[in-house]
Amino acid sequence: MGEITERFRNRIIEKRDEYLEVLKEMLSFPSVSATGEGMDEAPERVARALERAGLRVEIFREFNGYPAVWGELREERHGTLLIYNHYDVQPPDPIEKWTSDPFKPSIRDGRIYARGACDNKGNLAARLCAIDLLMDSVGEVPLNIKFLVEGEEEIGSPNLEKFFKNHRDSLSADACLWEMGGSSPEGRPLIYLGAKGILYLEIHATEKRPDLHSSWGAIVRNPALELVHVISTLRNREGLVTVDGFYDDVEKPDSETLALLDELGSAESEIRAVAGEDGLISRKPLKELFTDLTMMPCINVCGLNSGYTGPGSKTVLPNTAYAKIDVRLVPRMRPEKILELIIKHVERVSGGRVSVRPLEKGYPAARTSPSEPFVELVKMTAEAAHGVKPLVYPSSPGSGPMYLVTDFLGTPCVAAGIGDHRSNIHAPDESISLEDYLKGILHIALTIINFVPYLRSGVAPYL
Amino acid sequence: MGEITERFRNRIIEKRDEYLEVLKEMLSFPSVSATGEGMDEAPERVARALERAGLRVEIFREFNGYPAVWGELREERHGTLLIYNHYDVQPPDPIEKWTSDPFKPSIRDGRIYARGACDNKGNLAARLCAIDLLMDSVGEVPLNIKFLVEGEEEIGSPNLEKFFKNHRDSLSADACLWEMGGSSPEGRPLIYLGAKGILYLEIHATEKRPDLHSSWGAIVRNPALELVHVISTLRNREGLVTVDGFYDDVEKPDSETLALLDELGSAESEIRAVAGEDGLISRKPLKELFTDLTMMPCINVCGLNSGYTGPGSKTVLPNTAYAKIDVRLVPRMRPEKILELIIKHVERVSGGRVSVRPLEKGYPAARTSPSEPFVELVKMTAEAAHGVKPLVYPSSPGSGPMYLVTDFLGTPCVAAGIGDHRSNIHAPDESISLEDYLKGILHIALTIINFVPYLRSGVAPYL
Repeated sequence: MGEITERFRNRIIEKRDEYLEVLKEMLSFPSVSATGEGMDEAPERVARALERAGLRVEIFREFNGYPAVWGELREERHGTLLIYNHYDVQPPDPIEKWTSDPFKPSIRDGRIYARGACDNKGNLAARLCAIDLLMDSVGEVPLNIKFLVEGEEEIGSPNLEKFFKNHRDSLSADACLWEMGGSSPEGRPLIYLGAKGILYLEIHATEKRPDLHSSWGAIVRNPALELVHVISTLRNREGLVTVDGFYDDVEKPDSETLALLDELGSAESEIRAVAGEDGLISRKPLKELFTDLTMMPCINVCGLNSGYTGPGSKTVLPNTAYAKIDVRLVPRMRPEKILELIIKHVERVSGGRVSVRPLEKGYPAARTSPSEPFVELVKMTAEAAHGVKPLVYPSSPGSGPMYLVTDFLGTPCVAAGIGDHRSNIHAPDESISLEDYLKGILHIALTIINFVPYLRSGVAPYL
Repeated sequence: MGEITERFRNRIIEKRDEYLEVLKEMLSFPSVSATGEGMDEAPERVARALERAGLRVEIFREFNGYPAVWGELREERHGTLLIYNHYDVQPPDPIEKWTSDPFKPSIRDGRIYARGACDNKGNLAARLCAIDLLMDSVGEVPLNIKFLVEGEEEIGSPNLEKFFKNHRDSLSADACLWEMGGSSPEGRPLIYLGAKGILYLEIHATEKRPDLHSSWGAIVRNPALELVHVISTLRNREGLVTVDGFYDDVEKPDSETLALLDELGSAESEIRAVAGEDGLISRKPLKELFTDLTMMPCINVCGLNSGYTGPGSKTVLPNTAYAKIDVRLVPRMRPEKILELIIKHVERVSGGRVSVRPLEKGYPAARTSPSEPFVELVKMTAEAAHGVKPLVYPSSPGSGPMYLVTDFLGTPCVAAGIGDHRSNIHAPDESISLEDYLKGILHIALTIINFVPYLRSGVAPYL
């Protein structure tokens, strides 16, 4: 282990309690953008955490949405790192399945449980602690740092494009560190060189009549059946989307990407740990599964609702039914075009009786080339911090509005963070390992201290 | 109008407030057998109402379920009428769609709104008032009367068969008046000569893993999609059930039944009022629709549930999905056989991944011949009470454990009652017309006073 790495690691151990407090404070307030819960107070709480890390902070309330929190350390240095996180979280539902209160962090067996622990308040807390660690250990943060912490990621970042357009100059940077990331079940850090795009919509079947006694079901249309018919035509039994034209813009992976997929294919424990053999749609070879997961678009059902769903038997012919649907996009797929295709498909298979309601306009996918120097730096510092080689995904299976960095700003962007196969993101009992949290602080601190020398000369002297 | 009919009608008008009080009291307490709400107190409230009508009352708590309330007026007369009702009601969900509290009766525009107003506390109240009317107007009830008011009809009457077996002698009667009934949109009273059987079940798709981030949806099985696939194979686009063998035991209507269906075919307003032209599964001729509604079995989806169903966008890959399903049966179909067929179907189309859970063992259908003298009596008294010829359905589209009367006891059984196309049974804002309620009292009183002479000599002297 290099000298700096060891010094930083020891200092992190000394400051462990202080850094856990930063994390706990971040997890102690709700900030649910989908429902609005806690969103009045949350931006101030986040702003104060950034201030405590020594950043100059501004809350941008310029849009009719949840504000973005901006933090800056600008020293006229020859190098700038943009850091993207979000402070909003997914709804805690189904709340009854949580072991402890989702907004009161609870430590059990070396893990901290709370909504947002992994996605992605834990990540934000670690990055703030990395700033503190540098100030504390070397007396300075040797580059310009810009934190953008948005409040609408979990609802599709509807205002982020406007924010990027209004603040293009302020956002300029040499590279960007994105939210997301984690570790494989064997503890190999995961690095993502892209993110999928997303489209979120509801599909509704509704009749003008009220709910009826279910004996009418023999002759009166049932919207639950109309809906089910439509949803069952979205994917075939092999999991392939069967909407006409859905795959038209999907590109084949290039040779660099294929090389990354080759390496992922050997890391089967990630998939087995999450899904189990029996939980996979098909028994393809692992390389193909990783290709589907990272390189292919998908339509997923997030929720279904109709009629009576309580205990016992209620015989009703419901008057409405709906599904909540997300669509994951890969590079070159345009959300507005895909929405059109889905609307046309639903119209056709339902004879116009079932309708599509987009909840967000969505956004496209993003990619950074594996040959970017910043990618190499993040891999090196990850290996130093974790003591094991990282696994590099050409794209996260998940989504984020990373295209604003890669395509709009033209800045390379890499995601690395904290989490594992037990993190239950978007689900009850979300958690991260405390050890991973401390390693995450080290990883970011090493990335920052080596940033300018590595990008200038290809050498990382501080490891 | 006959002398007795007019005398009774005038007396009902004089006692209107008193009879409305009987109704309101019956609608003032919850008695939801599916959830248990109010079921501790409800049997006592019902028993007291029967006592106030002059009946000798007993509450039978012999089964591990909700008790049956029994009321008797036994005078060693040469004629006995059994009356069947139930005091339990459907859950009030979705409760937010009610204009007023479902368990605080509210009168608006000549209708009374409450859960159970139509199905079937209003019917029970009217029958109790008919007893009072006879005592009040002619000083006696000229036959033996037996009221059986059960508390588990809305959950499939799981203990009623045992009750009939244990009390076979006490239940013996010359005829039975069943719950259900109502009036067509033009005010023609509806008489049902049978009821469908029923089977209620849930269909579950479940994965052992927890909920996952929906980005896994590209390769990990989604139980919502597994469920939707199965449900979409239960019926075709014309509404026909596509489970192998489902229709095997269905008989063609006989000539008497066809004659009834001919007359129903002209009463199209009933169907149009409820469903509208656009709400029907197919554009068959009305006679065929009435045949489907009354003579054909059906599978209906009462509810669907999976994943996130709240506001906004939550991207989750759920670990479970279920549908609530009722199956309506016609004569000769055995619930246990149909359950087997459905289990086999679901097993086959899901590859064993989706399971069927019956919530009740169900019961078969029942029919009484159109040529039974009691049928003629109920038609005559209905015409006298309503001033218009009744419409006779060979069977109700709905279900009830009427087979225990027709098949187990061997007693003719007819359903006649209160309700119309605006009654919203099993749905929010359930209601009946107060005028229909008063006519219902008259109908039952005329049926009782003519019962012995008509069944003995084919003459109804008191109209």
